[in-house]
Formats: sequence, C-alpha cells, structure tokens
Amino acid sequence: MADEADLLARGREVAGRLWGTRAGGQELPAQRLAPEFFRLVTEFVFGMFWARPNLDLRSRSLCTVAQLAALGRIDELKGHLLGALNLGIRREELVEVLMQTACYAGVPAAVNALNAAAEVLKP
Amino acid sequence: MADEADLLARGREVAGRLWGTRAGGQELPAQRLAPEFFRLVTEFVFGMFWARPNLDLRSRSLCTVAQLAALGRIDELKGHLLGALNLGIRREELVEVLMQTACYAGVPAAVNALNAAAEVLKP
Amino acid sequence: MADEADLLARGREVAGRLWGTRAGGQELPAQRLAPEFFRLVTEFVFGMFWARPNLDLRSRSLCTVAQLAALGRIDELKGHLLGALNLGIRREELVEVLMQTACYAGVPAAVNALNAAAEVLKP
Amino acid sequence: MADEADLLARGREVAGRLWGTRAGGQELPAQRLAPEFFRLVTEFVFGMFWARPNLDLRSRSLCTVAQLAALGRIDELKGHLLGALNLGIRREELVEVLMQTACYAGVPAAVNALNAAAEVLKP
Amino acid sequence: MADEADLLARGREVAGRLWGTRAGGQELPAQRLAPEFFRLVTEFVFGMFWARPNLDLRSRSLCTVAQLAALGRIDELKGHLLGALNLGIRREELVEVLMQTACYAGVPAAVNALNAAAEVLKP
Amino acid sequence: MADEADLLARGREVAGRLWGTRAGGQELPAQRLAPEFFRLVTEFVFGMFWARPNLDLRSRSLCTVAQLAALGRIDELKGHLLGALNLGIRREELVEVLMQTACYAGVPAAVNALNAAAEVLKP
Repeated sequence: MADEADLLARGREVAGRLWGTRAGGQELPAQRLAPEFFRLVTEFVFGMFWARPNLDLRSRSLCTVAQLAALGRIDELKGHLLGALNLGIRREELVEVLMQTACYAGVPAAVNALNAAAEVLKP
Repeated sequence: MADEADLLARGREVAGRLWGTRAGGQELPAQRLAPEFFRLVTEFVFGMFWARPNLDLRSRSLCTVAQLAALGRIDELKGHLLGALNLGIRREELVEVLMQTACYAGVPAAVNALNAAAEVLKP
Repeated sequence: MADEADLLARGREVAGRLWGTRAGGQELPAQRLAPEFFRLVTEFVFGMFWARPNLDLRSRSLCTVAQLAALGRIDELKGHLLGALNLGIRREELVEVLMQTACYAGVPAAVNALNAAAEVLKP
Repeated sequence: MADEADLLARGREVAGRLWGTRAGGQELPAQRLAPEFFRLVTEFVFGMFWARPNLDLRSRSLCTVAQLAALGRIDELKGHLLGALNLGIRREELVEVLMQTACYAGVPAAVNALNAAAEVLKP
Repeated sequence: MADEADLLARGREVAGRLWGTRAGGQELPAQRLAPEFFRLVTEFVFGMFWARPNLDLRSRSLCTVAQLAALGRIDELKGHLLGALNLGIRREELVEVLMQTACYAGVPAAVNALNAAAEVLKP
Repeated sequence: MADEADLLARGREVAGRLWGTRAGGQELPAQRLAPEFFRLVTEFVFGMFWARPNLDLRSRSLCTVAQLAALGRIDELKGHLLGALNLGIRREELVEVLMQTACYAGVPAAVNALNAAAEVLKP
C-alpha cells in the first residue's frame, strides 16, 4: 500500500502517458477555484484505478471514451480522445466507438459526441 | 449496400459470436409484446453497427460493457458480460472496466454494475 | 387564479379521467411516509399542468409515456400506460411509442420500457 | 422486407415530411467526420421506426419532442420543434409539452427546453 | 390550505430570501415564450416545497446545489450558488459540496460544476 | 499528505460515524467479486473527500442523500438515510429533502426515493 505522495506520483505517470507534459496544460476555471480537487483526482482516478494491473491502457482509454460519450461529458471526452490518440489508438477506431454509442445511449448522444470529436480528430 | 434480409443475417452472425446458439435464448416479456422490435434491433445494432470494420469485436464488447455500466442498464450489462466472456475477454479485465466506472459515473454506478456482474462472473 | 382547494379538485378531476375511481388505488410505501407529498403532486402535476388548455389529454398522455420510458421510470410508466388505455389510446400506438424510444434514449431504455409494458398491455 | 436502399429511401421520405428539402441542410461537424453515420441514422431512425404503421406522424413528433426535452438533447430538440411545426403542430401545443416536462424530468429540464424553444418558436 | 394567490405570494417571499429584489432579474428567453410557466414554478417550487416547515433554508439550499451539480443543470446551479451565498452559506462550504459530487455522480460532473462555480464564487 | 494506510484509517473513521461497527455489515455480491474496490472507495470517498474540513458532516450527509435521490441510486440512498439518522438528522428533515427532489429531478425520482425511504425511516 503506497503512501499518498506515491499515489500522486503514480497517477501523474499514467496521466503523462495520455497527455505528455501537457497534462493539465490548459487551466480550467475550476483549477483556480479548487486546485486541491485536481490533485485528489490525479491520485484516485489515475493513481488508484488506471494504474491497476489486469487491463491494458488501450482498453482503459477506449472504455473511458465510450463512457464519456454515453454520459454526454463533452469536455472530458475531447481530452480523452486526445489521450487515446497519444496511446496510439487510431482515429477510425474512435469514430466507431462514438457511432456505436447510438445503440446504447441514443442517437443524440452519438451525434453530440461525434460533433465534439470532429474538433479533435481532424485528419 | 445490402438488403434488409442481409442486415438481419449479418446481425445474427455477429450476435452469434457473442451468445452462440443461445442468442435470444431466454425470452423477455418484451419479445412477446413486440417481436418485430427485436428483429429491428438485430438488424441495426448488430447488422449496421457491430458488423462495421475499423474496430475489433473485443473493443466493441468492452466499450459496450463500459457504457451499459455507466448508464445503469443492468439487464443488458449481464448479457454483454456473458458475451464478452464468450469472445475470450478475461473476467479480471471486465472487473477492471466496472471498477473504473466509479471515476466517470460515480461510485454507486460501479457498485450496481459489480453487483450485477457478481452473478455472471462467478469463478 | 384558483385557490389551492380548487387546484386539488381540478387535479383530481384530471387524474380521475386517467385512472377512474382507482386513482391512487394501490397504496405505495411512500404514501404512508409522506401523504402530503401526494396531495401536492395532484395539485401541481394534474391541477397546474395537465389541466391547462392548448394541448389535448391524448397528447399529454402519449408525451408522458414517452418521457417516462426515456427516463427509465418504470413504475410510473406502468401507471401511465394504464391511464393511456383508459383515455382510449390503442395498445398498438403505445407499443410504437416505446419502440421509438430506442432511437432517442438507446435500445436498453426501449427494452426496459417494453418489458414493463408487457405486464400492462396484455391483449 | 425491403433492401437497405429502400430503407434509406423510405427514411428520406419521412425526414422530408419533417424538414422538407432542407433535411440535413446545415452541415454538422459530425457529418464531415462520419458521413456514413448519418446515412445509417436515416435508415434506422426514419426508415425502420418512424416509417412504421400504427402511430400517426403527429404523435411520433410530439413524443420525440417530449423525450428530447426530458433527456436534455437541446440541438436535436430544436430540429424536431421545427419538424413539428412543419407537420402542422401548433406552437402553443409544443410549449405545453415542454412545460409539462417539469413534472417528469424536473424544472431545470423544462427551463432548458423552453430556452431552446424560444429561438425556434418565435411568433 | 392557501389559495393560489397565497401560493404565489409565499413562493415569492422564499425566492426573495435567496435572490432579493433581483429575483427573476435577468430575463431568460423562456420567460418571453412561456411567462406563465415561471409563475407556476414560483408557486409550486417555492410556495409548495421550499416554504414547508421541518427543514431549514440553509439545508434546502445546500441540497439543491448538490442535486443541480449531480444532474448537470449548470444554469440553475449558478443561480442557486448565488442564492446560497445570500443565505450566508460560505464559499468554502459550497466548494466542498461540489467536490464531493465526484463520488456520487463522477468526476466530470464535479469538474463541470466547479467550472460553473468559478464564475459565481469569485473571492 | 498522509500515506494510503492513513487514508484508509481516516476513511474508516468517518464511515464509522455514519454506520458504526456495522459499516460494511451486510455483504454485497460485489464485495466478493471485487473486495479491493471497496477498500479504494473507503480511501477516496471517505478518506479523501468526507474527511476534508470546511463542511460539517451533517451537511455532507444531507447533500449525499439529496444527490442519491436525484440520481435514482436507491441502494446507496437507503444506506445513507441510515447514516443520516445515526448522525442525528431527523426523519422529518430527510423526508423534506426527498420531497423537494420532485422540483429538480422530477416527481418520479421523488416517489422512488420516498418509497425506498419508507423502509428505512419507519417511525
């Protein structure tokens, strides 16, 4: 069981594989209001969950993209589409994940996700 | 562009890879009420979307499991967990997908999904 | 502008057209815990909104069925399917509304709604 | 059972009744990213579901407006409000559907829907 | 049981404690489209529910902020954050409520809420 | 910054104030499938978020009840209603929170929450 500084280091390592040195690059308004929130998120989302064994990063990334599309979380979706590209997932694969969202979350969820993706996945 | 009978055949072929001859095995009340609905679903979900190229079945299956968990669609989640096992996805991988749901849809969504999975993923 | 007793009377009149004397028939656990809640609901849902002019009851009923299916509110859906039948809406029409839900809220939402409907819409 | 070209033709015919020659007029970013997605949507949403018998177009349109409002799908809501007007549904009826959304999806859902509608339903 | 004019007066009194004379200050597009909707909302949300005994206004306000954050209702969230400040709830308390949203509705819901709050809770 | 064992201890201390020695008492199927998940949840939900300063436990509890009701997370809602009672929050206060949910998440969300509460809040 690692200490909390380890959680943060481990979380930053994983986040770095998705977004490189740009991780947390563009500052959100929320980061000025609650900077400690983003430290906690790095610790628990990336340090506790993404850093676990038993599932490869590619699959974690695709599943995250799929969930964000289904839930309509458009800002995070854009960030994770970029992360997925950095992991080597192909643009065509991501479009398929978003299209298939129509089956499980409805056509409007898929259209919204594809609209957001169009900004990020430009050829 | 295939004709609609082709869509149905293609959809059944994909669904068969997930659920074998048992596809549509246990009859739902909805199937008696609206049998044609399930034909349409096979045509468009599996024949139009899952049968497309550019994304492997393993990834389609994981993303579907992820979305159903995030959306709280428990009955379909159970069915797709079984389908994922039939495609050779490991039990441990599926548990990771469901655990990670806590980050994007909240802890209760993950707990519900894991409770449902406990019935299906018995070792 | 009517007084609140009028709201209640007006709400009961509309609810009575949906569910007859059986309105509020089967007592929910919530009704023992918070009986005043159900009076308020009758006043504002049926007395304030459903009782308004400009839209016929048939359309209000169909739209309510559609929304409850999309939102996955299964218990209320069953109640409003019964109400719709009492207003003279045909069983086949209701099945179409539920099937079409697949397009806007996803296939699992439609399947859940059709499963619930199968109990209520028995021929 | 029609072939897939028939599905597309049938879907376009229904969509044309909602949006005339302007159907798919303003191009979305998603249409450049995934043009085939929109063909599939026309085939299955309009060709498979809306084109079915047993429910009139007016009711399908009202139920779609109701669901999009409840689910907070604002862009599609605007499109379908326009479609509803083209089918002859009155502005006042649509406002009632959106107001009633407050009962089933909460007041904020109704306010969002009415804000979106204000752009489309100008007298 | 009060008459409906009483409901409106009572609702306005409560809303006034949240937003002062500015209550309903900035006009929404929806207010031009459906002015009577906002009267009904004042009557039932504030006159029927918020005006009830058994729970203090501070708790009602915090719970409303929590729900709007969980549901992603960003415009209403901003309004109720302002209302909470007017009731004397501290900025730091509101940030905690929004941060904790990550546990129950997922991290993206919390980030969206904190981004919205950053506009309102400027120190 | 505490180490992870500290997070767990701190989280257990907070959870103990809600549920006493019964914390995690009734074993869920998910606990057999993914026991480590529940350790992580105790660490991040209670150790990272609930244990933070700036907001009293009573307010955290009420806001959690409010969010779970709005999101329809019925099992967790029951658990947190019990926790709220253990913190000294009165039954009448909890009923008010659940009733008010009708305004923001719709009447069916409130009815479901009140039905669940009726099991837990028996006088």
